[in-house]
Amino acid sequence: MTTPAYAAVDWGTSSFRLWLMDPAGRILAERRSGEGMTSAAKMGFPQVLESHLQAVEAAADLPVIICGMAGARQGWIEAGYVDVPALLPAVLSGAVEVPQVNRKIHILPGLAQRAREAPDVMRGEETQLLGALDGSEPSGEQIVCMPGTHSKWVHLSGETVSGFSTYMTGELFEVVSKHSVLAHSLADAGSVDGDQPVFTAAVRAAFKAPQRLTNLLFTVRSGMLLAELTATDAAARLSGVLIGAEIAGGLSSSGSQAASIGLVASGRLRGLYEGAFAAVSLPFTPIDADEAVRAGLSAAARQILPLQLQRTT
Amino acid sequence: MTTPAYAAVDWGTSSFRLWLMDPAGRILAERRSGEGMTSAAKMGFPQVLESHLQAVEAAADLPVIICGMAGARQGWIEAGYVDVPALLPAVLSGAVEVPQVNRKIHILPGLAQRAREAPDVMRGEETQLLGALDGSEPSGEQIVCMPGTHSKWVHLSGETVSGFSTYMTGELFEVVSKHSVLAHSLADAGSVDGDQPVFTAAVRAAFKAPQRLTNLLFTVRSGMLLAELTATDAAARLSGVLIGAEIAGGLSSSGSQAASIGLVASGRLRGLYEGAFAAVSLPFTPIDADEAVRAGLSAAARQILPLQLQRTT
Repeated sequence: MTTPAYAAVDWGTSSFRLWLMDPAGRILAERRSGEGMTSAAKMGFPQVLESHLQAVEAAADLPVIICGMAGARQGWIEAGYVDVPALLPAVLSGAVEVPQVNRKIHILPGLAQRAREAPDVMRGEETQLLGALDGSEPSGEQIVCMPGTHSKWVHLSGETVSGFSTYMTGELFEVVSKHSVLAHSLADAGSVDGDQPVFTAAVRAAFKAPQRLTNLLFTVRSGMLLAELTATDAAARLSGVLIGAEIAGGLSSSGSQAASIGLVASGRLRGLYEGAFAAVSLPFTPIDADEAVRAGLSAAARQILPLQLQRTT
Repeated sequence: MTTPAYAAVDWGTSSFRLWLMDPAGRILAERRSGEGMTSAAKMGFPQVLESHLQAVEAAADLPVIICGMAGARQGWIEAGYVDVPALLPAVLSGAVEVPQVNRKIHILPGLAQRAREAPDVMRGEETQLLGALDGSEPSGEQIVCMPGTHSKWVHLSGETVSGFSTYMTGELFEVVSKHSVLAHSLADAGSVDGDQPVFTAAVRAAFKAPQRLTNLLFTVRSGMLLAELTATDAAARLSGVLIGAEIAGGLSSSGSQAASIGLVASGRLRGLYEGAFAAVSLPFTPIDADEAVRAGLSAAARQILPLQLQRTT
C-alpha cells in the first residue's frame, strides 16, 4: 500500500467525512459519520478527529487539511472569511493552522459577501468550487448550483467568485416537514424521486410562480385535506416546490446571462436536482460533489503542506 | 342590562374568543383564551365552551354560534366546506348543529377551493368576510387580505368568493425563528413595528424579488454573522421578508386587476401589514378583524336562530 500523505476532511454542520489520501491524491481509506460541528462542539474537535485517524491507522504526524464549519466561530478554530469578489485559489492562503496539537492541521477559510442588501457566507463550498475548477482553465461567466441544507448559487467569472446567494431549501424542508401544520402525515423525504410526476409538476409550478412559494407550501396541506394527495406525494410536492422556487431565485440572483450552469451534487440530492433541472428544461453540467471537495482539499494540501505531492490531473 | 340573545364564538387553532351579544348585536361581555382547537381537543370542546359561558353567567339555554377550526375534522363536529366560487351568504345555510347538547350550538362551515393546481381551504375567515361585507352592497372586483398564521388572499366579485390562496406567513415566522439556524439570538417578534426602517426595507426587498424569499431569509443569519444586524433588527427583517413576499404573491394570485384591496386585521398584525402596504405604496381599506368576525357571527345568528334579532347597521 502507498504511504498516506495527508488526511482530507470535510467537516460540516451535521456531517464529518475523512479521506486518507496518497501523494497523488488517490483515496486510501474513507470515514463518514454524523459527528458534524454540532456534535463535535460537545465531544471535542480533537477527540473526534483523532478517533477517525486512529480508525484508519494514520501516523501520529500525518497532516490534516479541513474545510467546512469546523472553521466557524462556533467551530474548532475560527478560520475567518475571504471577501468576494475573490479569486478562488486565494482561499488557500487564508488557511489557519490549529495551535497546540501534535500534528499539522490546517482549516480553510470560508467566503463572505459583505453587501448590505445581500450579505452572505459559505464554508466548505469554496473548497468544492476550487476542486470543481482544479485543472481546468475556466473563462467566461458561469453559474454553479450547490444544493444542500443551505444551497449556494455562485456566480463565477473565470476563477473569480463575483457573488453568491444562499437558499435555505434543505433546512426549510426539515423545519416545515417536522414543525409546521404539514408535519401531519408527510411521508419520509427519502422516498422522493427526481422523476416522480408529483415532484416535477411541483418544481414547474414553483419555478413559474416563485412569488407564491409559501402558498404552494400550503397546498401540500390543503391537497391532503381535500383528499387529493397521499403522504408520499405530499413529501414530493413539498420538495419540488422548494427546489423549483430555489432554481427561479438562484437564476435571478446569479445573473441569468451566464453561458453555462454547473450542478455540484452527490447522492440523493443529485438525483432530485437533476430531475428538477430537467423539469424546467435547464441544461447543466453535473459535477460530483464528493470528488470536488476532495480535489479542493488536495489542491490545498499541495499548496500548504511541505511535501512533494503530485497532481492527478 | 339587556338580556343576552346569543354567544358568538371565534374558535381558531390556538385561540378561543367568545362574545355575549344582545339582540341588536352589541357586546355585553367578552372572553379570550388560548384554548383553541388544539387544547380543546384534549380538554373537551363542551367543557371549554361551558366554562366560558358560566364565567359570563350565560343562561343554560343561550344559543351559541361558532366559526373556525372547531368545525374541522379534528375539531368538535365537522362542519364541512362550501365550495368556491361561493356566494358568501350561502355559508350560513351550511351551518351544522352540534347534537346531544343541552343548548342550541351551531358551527359554520369553511370554504374549499377544489382546484387541482391550487387546492385551498379556510375556516373562520369566511365569517370575517361575511361580516366585512354585511350591510354593504359590494359590486365589482375586490381583493381582501386577511393576515395571520395562515394569511388568506381572497378574490371577491360582488358577494361571490371567486377564489383564494393561503400564505403560510405567520407559521413560517414561528417555525423558522424557533427551529432553524435563524433561531440563534433572534429577538422577540413582539418588538417589531410596522414603521421600523429594517422592517419596511425588508418588505420592499422581498416584494421586489419574491423569488429570492428563502435567500432573503438566510440574509437574516448572514447579516448577523457579518455583524451588521442586531437581534431586534433580525426579527424585523425576518418578519418584513415574509410579509413582503406574501404581498407580491397574494397580488399575483388574486388577480391584480382588482380595483380595491381590503385589509382585515386587528392588533399587532394590523400595524405590521399597514406598515408593509405603505412601504410598497399599495392603497388599501382597513377593516377591523374582530368587528368583522362578530358581524359575521351576528349575521349567522339572525339567519339561524329562532329569535327576533335586529340589525345594527
